[in-house]
Amino acid sequence: MTRRSTRAYKSLPVEGEKLKQVIEAGRYAPSGGNSQTTHFLVIRDGRVLEELAMLVKQEFSKMEETPGMYKSMANAIRASKGETYVFHYFAPILIVTANQKDYGNNIADCSCALENMMLMANALDLGSCWINQLRWLNENEVILDYMRKLGMADDERVYGALALGYPKTADGLPSRTPLPRNGNPVTLI
Amino acid sequence: MTRRSTRAYKSLPVEGEKLKQVIEAGRYAPSGGNSQTTHFLVIRDGRVLEELAMLVKQEFSKMEETPGMYKSMANAIRASKGETYVFHYFAPILIVTANQKDYGNNIADCSCALENMMLMANALDLGSCWINQLRWLNENEVILDYMRKLGMADDERVYGALALGYPKTADGLPSRTPLPRNGNPVTLI
Repeated sequence: MTRRSTRAYKSLPVEGEKLKQVIEAGRYAPSGGNSQTTHFLVIRDGRVLEELAMLVKQEFSKMEETPGMYKSMANAIRASKGETYVFHYFAPILIVTANQKDYGNNIADCSCALENMMLMANALDLGSCWINQLRWLNENEVILDYMRKLGMADDERVYGALALGYPKTADGLPSRTPLPRNGNPVTLI
Repeated sequence: MTRRSTRAYKSLPVEGEKLKQVIEAGRYAPSGGNSQTTHFLVIRDGRVLEELAMLVKQEFSKMEETPGMYKSMANAIRASKGETYVFHYFAPILIVTANQKDYGNNIADCSCALENMMLMANALDLGSCWINQLRWLNENEVILDYMRKLGMADDERVYGALALGYPKTADGLPSRTPLPRNGNPVTLI
């Protein structure tokens, strides 16, 4: 109930033990037919994050908005054409979830893993935010090539990612005031 | 860590307060751009569940396995041609998660809601199981028509569902021995 997205991070590193707990929460998420094919690429290297942010900006800035495009994706394209655009909000860690491209539950499995990691992050006073940009670019050759250099297999694609780190807030804690749930309707049958 | 899938249920109803907690956990899942468009269709009516199970069996039994088809879907097609096939394991409740068909985060949002509901169910000693059949049939006219009669909107489609109820186990509790995680590899960068 108290999980919220964090979009500003301190440049502090995250303790290895906490990071491990977050990853393990993701690894223990359910998977279709217990396939366990979610691949967690955990980027802590600042130089790699900087390169990746530069490539994401570069590739998005080549794209154009189209009518009816998913709003958040259109926002990313618009923002990428500005001077500064850092898709992962300068978080010190980005956990990329990849999965088999021909597997029917790839998005669902990665989503469950991401949700588990967000809940564990919140329980550990860490901030986190779902990041879609690498999924939107998951057939982009430049990004594919870079992800493969980082260890992603040829038959894998990115289906989501998580920014992770200590929130840049006055008290250092993630915001925990739940957003009102006016949507998400329920029909009782 | 202790969440497991439950595939046999007692015919006991679930207390209204517990059901509400499960649904609220789902409603508080994150959504893309905070869109909150996941629609929870909560089926408790035994007659409706029976009809739906019959229709799912009927529609799957018309389908044929194809090479490379997602294993769990092939299993469902094969099982549907047998004498008895009840896709929701006779759970007393099925929570169907629908979302806008033209919304880029529909599967991801429904998956996060389902994961939250599975975690809450486990915390309340309830069993649950991710159910994919209605998603696999989410463009099937017979199933679409039936879901619309239950309250699903024309522009919505099913992206997942959850069987929910008390587990049929010796102690009445869900199994909580974690399955080993031999897959879900981690690459540290």
